[in-house]
Amino acid sequence: MAEFELIQRFFAELAPRGQGVELGVGDDAALLRPPPGRDLALTLDTLVAGRHFLAGTDPEALGHKALAVNLSDLAAMGAEPAWALLSLTLPEADEHWLAAFARGLGELARRHGVALVGGDTCRGPLAVSLQLTGLVEPGKALRRDGAEPGDGIFVTGTLGDAALALRRLRTEGTAPEPLRRRLERPEPRLEEGRSLVGIASACIDLSDGLVADLGHLCDASGCGARVEAARLPLSAEVRREVEARGDWGEVLAGGDDYELCFTVPPGRLEALAASGVACTRIGEMVPGGGVAVFDEGGRPLPSLRGYDHFA
Amino acid sequence: MAEFELIQRFFAELAPRGQGVELGVGDDAALLRPPPGRDLALTLDTLVAGRHFLAGTDPEALGHKALAVNLSDLAAMGAEPAWALLSLTLPEADEHWLAAFARGLGELARRHGVALVGGDTCRGPLAVSLQLTGLVEPGKALRRDGAEPGDGIFVTGTLGDAALALRRLRTEGTAPEPLRRRLERPEPRLEEGRSLVGIASACIDLSDGLVADLGHLCDASGCGARVEAARLPLSAEVRREVEARGDWGEVLAGGDDYELCFTVPPGRLEALAASGVACTRIGEMVPGGGVAVFDEGGRPLPSLRGYDHFA
Repeated sequence: MAEFELIQRFFAELAPRGQGVELGVGDDAALLRPPPGRDLALTLDTLVAGRHFLAGTDPEALGHKALAVNLSDLAAMGAEPAWALLSLTLPEADEHWLAAFARGLGELARRHGVALVGGDTCRGPLAVSLQLTGLVEPGKALRRDGAEPGDGIFVTGTLGDAALALRRLRTEGTAPEPLRRRLERPEPRLEEGRSLVGIASACIDLSDGLVADLGHLCDASGCGARVEAARLPLSAEVRREVEARGDWGEVLAGGDDYELCFTVPPGRLEALAASGVACTRIGEMVPGGGVAVFDEGGRPLPSLRGYDHFA
Repeated sequence: MAEFELIQRFFAELAPRGQGVELGVGDDAALLRPPPGRDLALTLDTLVAGRHFLAGTDPEALGHKALAVNLSDLAAMGAEPAWALLSLTLPEADEHWLAAFARGLGELARRHGVALVGGDTCRGPLAVSLQLTGLVEPGKALRRDGAEPGDGIFVTGTLGDAALALRRLRTEGTAPEPLRRRLERPEPRLEEGRSLVGIASACIDLSDGLVADLGHLCDASGCGARVEAARLPLSAEVRREVEARGDWGEVLAGGDDYELCFTVPPGRLEALAASGVACTRIGEMVPGGGVAVFDEGGRPLPSLRGYDHFA
């Protein structure tokens, strides 16, 4: 089956008309009409086999995740997703694989109103690059650089589940389904991100681990973060692990959480409560720089770095 | 050196302020403000080592080419390039390699007013994904689907040079510099593309070979193409090869030309002449479908397919 037919067959149906799509898959470029008075939020992420996902990962889960990690970036900006471009590098043109991949990607795309408008496929070591464009009101996007000392630090959901799932899969070949879902089918926090516009002073999504990503937010904002380990939201499974092993590594630096970490000035805490965003306060911004995590006795935990793609 | 520093160090300088860039490299997404009343043209292409370029390719040339192939897509739409996102997959974080890659990409980006506004890097088999956004007047983009029987078929530049260079490099380890430049440093036909707006009835860029790409134009337009081999514009080097070997393969199906192939209705031929676009008439659109190429005696050449990434 020729490359062109592959694209047409599996992805054309993911490109509905409307939503500003003037011309979708099948020309040299997609043509899109942005609504007037909106800024664009653009993100591009690549997932590489053996690096971002295990080689035998279910293609349906991979299709989901390739879109989810980009949606998570838009969630962290408070943007509304609109259009996607997909570049697939495959060792071979396997119809069953492609059908499952398209199903996983398509289901999530439909739920969030994303139209797949173009891209390419080629042969090579398995990798997925996905580019996503979102829309946001000018000047209203959530950025990393607006936090100030005294702002509270919050996270959505729970931390460390995906990292624990990955370790179980690697060491035991299996992981409990709820943990595994967190690794393979992360749910981007789009609704939460949009609700935080006008409330959060800064926001980032947790892809490389809390310490690394909150560290980026600190660097961009020119201040530091003081986090209390006892406040970190954990699933029962992860809490058991931390208590049994006394190791906070997966919680603080495991990566793949795809939760939002954001800061809120004291004057907007009521607005946060009224917003209905489910979240946990884990600490507060302080003068200086860097991320320090303290145990219940007020002792600093050993410093932990996030996932570094070249480490 | 950490991933984050790599991006900051080598690519931040490629993201000038202005041109609608509200926020460039360094947040979860880039924030861009499109000028009012313009459509967006979006393209995404991946180059994989050993597939789209030889493993030992000069990184400066690769940086150039990764942007050039996407610029060529925008040229074929008659769009004006604006913003790029880059995703680099590298076997190792080699500073010299990155500096050269950034130099090659940066030089071409500056010439065409492209701002690099985001992306990511990760470790894995060498590959480059680049996404480019261009601007075009609503309804004015050059598409593939507007050709009609009777329209003349034109190409810019010469065909087959890159394919001949690739064969020479593979078989002899070297190729004459002018040929090699066509392979490694293609010059996208942006000015020509913009000049053809309002003149060409359809347009495509030649990345997979004339027969394959003109075939896509025929499919989209619902008609056929009759091409005369004797009219095809060839460099002296390629002409010598064709005459010596009697093989039109590299000219018709070699790929990597990055010239524009476009159609012009009879009533707009004068406008084409007045536009100053340097091009060669190679045939005309006919009823039916598919691409047929005829020799000087009016005999059809054997059918040739373009480069299929899964063939």
